[in-house]
Amino acid sequence: MSNPGKTLSLDENRLFPSDPTQRAIARRLYAQVAGLPIVSPHGHTDPAWFAGNAPFANATELLLVPDHYVFRMLYSQGVPLDALGIPRADGRRAPVDPRQAWRVFAERFHLFRGTPSSLWLNHVFHEVFGLRVRLDAGTADHYYDTITAALQGDAFRPRALFERFNIEVIATTEGPLDTLEHHQAIADSGWNGRVLTAYRPDAVVDPEHEEFAGALERFGDITGEDVHSWEGYLRAHRNRRGFFKAMGATSTDHGHESAMTADLSAAQARELFGRIVSGRFSAGEAALFRGQMLTEMAAMSLDDGLVMQLHPGCHRNHNPTLFRRHGRNIGADLPLVSEYVRGLKPLLDRFGNEADFRLILFTLDESTYSRELGPMAGHYPCLYLGPAWWFHDAPEGMWRFREQTLSTAGFYNTVGFNDDTRAFLSIPARHDVARRVDCAFLARLVAEHRLDEDEAAELAVDLAYRLPKQAYKL
Amino acid sequence: MSNPGKTLSLDENRLFPSDPTQRAIARRLYAQVAGLPIVSPHGHTDPAWFAGNAPFANATELLLVPDHYVFRMLYSQGVPLDALGIPRADGRRAPVDPRQAWRVFAERFHLFRGTPSSLWLNHVFHEVFGLRVRLDAGTADHYYDTITAALQGDAFRPRALFERFNIEVIATTEGPLDTLEHHQAIADSGWNGRVLTAYRPDAVVDPEHEEFAGALERFGDITGEDVHSWEGYLRAHRNRRGFFKAMGATSTDHGHESAMTADLSAAQARELFGRIVSGRFSAGEAALFRGQMLTEMAAMSLDDGLVMQLHPGCHRNHNPTLFRRHGRNIGADLPLVSEYVRGLKPLLDRFGNEADFRLILFTLDESTYSRELGPMAGHYPCLYLGPAWWFHDAPEGMWRFREQTLSTAGFYNTVGFNDDTRAFLSIPARHDVARRVDCAFLARLVAEHRLDEDEAAELAVDLAYRLPKQAYKL
Amino acid sequence: MSNPGKTLSLDENRLFPSDPTQRAIARRLYAQVAGLPIVSPHGHTDPAWFAGNAPFANATELLLVPDHYVFRMLYSQGVPLDALGIPRADGRRAPVDPRQAWRVFAERFHLFRGTPSSLWLNHVFHEVFGLRVRLDAGTADHYYDTITAALQGDAFRPRALFERFNIEVIATTEGPLDTLEHHQAIADSGWNGRVLTAYRPDAVVDPEHEEFAGALERFGDITGEDVHSWEGYLRAHRNRRGFFKAMGATSTDHGHESAMTADLSAAQARELFGRIVSGRFSAGEAALFRGQMLTEMAAMSLDDGLVMQLHPGCHRNHNPTLFRRHGRNIGADLPLVSEYVRGLKPLLDRFGNEADFRLILFTLDESTYSRELGPMAGHYPCLYLGPAWWFHDAPEGMWRFREQTLSTAGFYNTVGFNDDTRAFLSIPARHDVARRVDCAFLARLVAEHRLDEDEAAELAVDLAYRLPKQAYKL
Repeated sequence: MSNPGKTLSLDENRLFPSDPTQRAIARRLYAQVAGLPIVSPHGHTDPAWFAGNAPFANATELLLVPDHYVFRMLYSQGVPLDALGIPRADGRRAPVDPRQAWRVFAERFHLFRGTPSSLWLNHVFHEVFGLRVRLDAGTADHYYDTITAALQGDAFRPRALFERFNIEVIATTEGPLDTLEHHQAIADSGWNGRVLTAYRPDAVVDPEHEEFAGALERFGDITGEDVHSWEGYLRAHRNRRGFFKAMGATSTDHGHESAMTADLSAAQARELFGRIVSGRFSAGEAALFRGQMLTEMAAMSLDDGLVMQLHPGCHRNHNPTLFRRHGRNIGADLPLVSEYVRGLKPLLDRFGNEADFRLILFTLDESTYSRELGPMAGHYPCLYLGPAWWFHDAPEGMWRFREQTLSTAGFYNTVGFNDDTRAFLSIPARHDVARRVDCAFLARLVAEHRLDEDEAAELAVDLAYRLPKQAYKL
Repeated sequence: MSNPGKTLSLDENRLFPSDPTQRAIARRLYAQVAGLPIVSPHGHTDPAWFAGNAPFANATELLLVPDHYVFRMLYSQGVPLDALGIPRADGRRAPVDPRQAWRVFAERFHLFRGTPSSLWLNHVFHEVFGLRVRLDAGTADHYYDTITAALQGDAFRPRALFERFNIEVIATTEGPLDTLEHHQAIADSGWNGRVLTAYRPDAVVDPEHEEFAGALERFGDITGEDVHSWEGYLRAHRNRRGFFKAMGATSTDHGHESAMTADLSAAQARELFGRIVSGRFSAGEAALFRGQMLTEMAAMSLDDGLVMQLHPGCHRNHNPTLFRRHGRNIGADLPLVSEYVRGLKPLLDRFGNEADFRLILFTLDESTYSRELGPMAGHYPCLYLGPAWWFHDAPEGMWRFREQTLSTAGFYNTVGFNDDTRAFLSIPARHDVARRVDCAFLARLVAEHRLDEDEAAELAVDLAYRLPKQAYKL
Repeated sequence: MSNPGKTLSLDENRLFPSDPTQRAIARRLYAQVAGLPIVSPHGHTDPAWFAGNAPFANATELLLVPDHYVFRMLYSQGVPLDALGIPRADGRRAPVDPRQAWRVFAERFHLFRGTPSSLWLNHVFHEVFGLRVRLDAGTADHYYDTITAALQGDAFRPRALFERFNIEVIATTEGPLDTLEHHQAIADSGWNGRVLTAYRPDAVVDPEHEEFAGALERFGDITGEDVHSWEGYLRAHRNRRGFFKAMGATSTDHGHESAMTADLSAAQARELFGRIVSGRFSAGEAALFRGQMLTEMAAMSLDDGLVMQLHPGCHRNHNPTLFRRHGRNIGADLPLVSEYVRGLKPLLDRFGNEADFRLILFTLDESTYSRELGPMAGHYPCLYLGPAWWFHDAPEGMWRFREQTLSTAGFYNTVGFNDDTRAFLSIPARHDVARRVDCAFLARLVAEHRLDEDEAAELAVDLAYRLPKQAYKL
């Protein structure tokens, strides 16, 4: 078969240092972790995939439309989201042939050179679909046809891929109003894939969330609590956390604009909540309420044992034109300057020394790694550091995370890798990148005689497998 | 001839990794870009040099007096600016023999070890003047004599050097009051060196600029507009932008204390401008006016197609003693904490999605690379990232720029290199450093199997040549 | 003797790059500095050790109890400070067998993998105590017995170790109320070890220090000045600075929450001081007073020639529960966002250009290295950069310090290494790490042809020995 494309290969030494000493060590370390099961304690895959186990539609639907890493880059280079078939805010789409959208992407695949998206996608192309030519304008149709055809087979249905990917456990993320019906369906189905949920209450915790008022109503309906009273509102959270936990959840997750926390008296909190439910509150009061709710969630974690995650510091929906046209999650979120030392103090003053409380911190502001997060995690018993997140989830970002937190937090105040993705097919690729980068990092420490290789080998397994299970109680 | 100095050499592998795998790749990549013409889309050379083509005076006048990178370091180690013959604020100078000033510099050349100045200067010494001993106290006179003698020859006149340096196009930077007579003279001369201007209106945009009031008067005179009315003032800008464009300009440049922008209504803007021209305004109003003017300039860019550059975040003239004695641009400028996500929002809300608008962002605050600039450029169609700037224009700074923007902005939302210099002779050295560092960076990606070498080779040419031409419409 | 542990070795190439070219250069550079005497211009060893020369008690008392780097990490992983025998705020301790505390530590020594503590401790174990097995649960008693036994011998008394460590000079740090009796005793003893003090007046400069009121009283008593008047208070400082200088001090040190300075008129300062001594002041006034005192201290430095050090940006005692239980210095200090360009301006406006004034700046916020500190030190004659400090005093932190300050400050606006420690035995280890990292850094510059090796060799000696002596006037 004559194929016009250039060869696509995945070198077995990819992401390892080229220095022969370091590379040899990295290879030996990686050999011990390459085959370990995937533990995915935080992410955004859709439980409906595993409940329904329906085949994915085509290359564009599977790999392009859900991946904001991909279409944000294309958009930055002048491709309208409509040309890719990204849904509008009203759920409708521009009339775009998915093959044509794929071509638009393929012609511009060079834009991703050096980015993590190219690492992940090439891994998927090569390992999942067996493609052996590089993606470009000339191979666009070959790709589209190959992928779309493969997706029709049973081996490419969600559960089959889950098993093929050697996923031991995966957590999805649901809002407090979610009925968890897909998780129930999975449990009822007899399939033994382990798909957990996590409690993410932002829509009923952030008074500035566009769905807050309606979500609060339904929060009352679903829990039978008077959620317009402070005590009832808190009980409603306890109620839903209990339900999520009963459905397998081991963690909660909180996406806040900042890591600011508060520790108001009950009377102050009640009064603040009154203003919040009245709808007449200032931006400062909204922020204070969110901060107070972090402390309340920590208190509940102490009771129910759910591990708390905090993902702060994102300016959501920065682009109002696109927000109006296409809604949320279309790549227009941007990192903000973040602060933790003063922001988390109210929460830590209450719960920082509790051995049974666990708070995993993330950041989009890397200047906090060495200045705040490492030193904090290296002191407070409750604090752990989540891995390099979102914009920083690339080999360079992972390396900076390790390099800037190691001296103060060590390895054992970190929690291993999170793929944090809705791009299901990229999960093995993402974990593979993380494992390779950690092995490369450890190899350097060994080559420079800061660790013995047996210690590095133990660490490699800890980072890839043991720490996430432990940190997330999986 | 017996020469007392140590050997000065420029190793052909300088700035390449010492790892043999990476070095070999870097050499191959560099071989493809080493001979490319220089595209210099932003800088501060003096167009009078190319208009008049007069010889440079001597080593001190050419290499020491105009280079604040050099004399700031000497000053930091106790050398008074007068000892180097740096002009006073009134234009006069201390009575210093230029040879003696050169000796002061030569005796302290070790202070520059490891700095970009030593890279650039040694390149100039070796390549432009053929010197083969290192500069130090013992070789000071040899240097002074060799350089000063060479400058008398026709081969060292500005136009001859321009051609020898293989400069395809260079942009200078002029204020809105500039008559561009030198650019006109160059055009009229029949010489085919391409020397463009760029529109830098700071003196009539920043109400706190010490020349603002007078500059505004002359801005009215030169344009024939009533620049004390908001509409007339804006028309005056359009007028001068048009003139600059007619004279070849393809870009504007804006040096602001911050990246804060505003998007006032016409009525609010008119009222604010009224306070500005009255001279009775607060610091906050001055800042707001500057922010509004960035948005106005963006609007004009959309009309006339001039590419907009923003160089924010510098505390100018930090040292008041030196400012009184020696004026501006004497090395006492310092970087400030910078913010872009919130600051640029008003401008981006209006023009962020315009395909025909182009805004190139620079920073002196590297913590914004991964936190703000990379993610922003990787989303907004109008945004591009200028290269590592000023204090960061060193191999380490260039490397950090790439490493911290690659994963979110890729390579194709960057614009190649700017030398941004008034040190004409250093231009080939600076471009050579940039090309070498980019090749070294790419070589690492290839050696770690993240790019194929043919992709890296294309990228090397893109970064050195194609992207600046494209980004700046050259 | 059958020993169950794994081999502990200190590779002679530790911390050197594994690239053979770079490693060979690093080894040659290091050979020239490995044996140089230790110059320790800033630290927290106890002068009583050298005055009394009593033996240290046991492994736990020597290596665990005084080292907050060690017990903060253990605490972060759930070990109560009481289990380690860390003193309570009232001076008493939980009844803990030191051997048992040592076991708790030994069982968790893997937590320190990759951290500077493991580098330092393994160096001490291997070089000072001749241990050849790794520390872990199985070797805990072997370690405890070996170390504790060794400490009984004369060779392990403080003065013998001082000599064995080849310390040319060491500075301790004392408060203004200190009688310096131990320094006097050392001077009177005829022992020729050079142990200097440094003037650290925080307790009488920071109105929010918990001991301020009482310390101020005693400050009056000890100096015979009316310290409730502004002029008397300043005279008291001059008095104590003079006494410290007479006792050998060459420097002062200032630990402030920020680098903010002020330059009030005498009348304003007098009025502010009145509010401070009245005890009725706001947080802003306390901060303003601290800022004013930095400028006053600079003025005094100009008179008496003491070198000024500023260690800003730390949130002390972040954990109120632990502060109540165990007091200060128990590992609960955290870095804060820091700013220098605007903060230091008032002080620099007055003294920035003084050739006889010297101010050494430190930071806990690494984002200031390239943004503020490097550019400032590369301009102001009075400014020098202290080395990577506290949380950043690790190989990676040292490397970032060099990499991010080199291009703007060069090497010669830095002051070599500070061990800044109260862990006496770790001093040779810490200096060795610093020397190795600097040699590795220089080796890379040589291998990439940015320095000649003879220049790097000179620099290696400058950084390890000449610069600290010069900067601190030792």
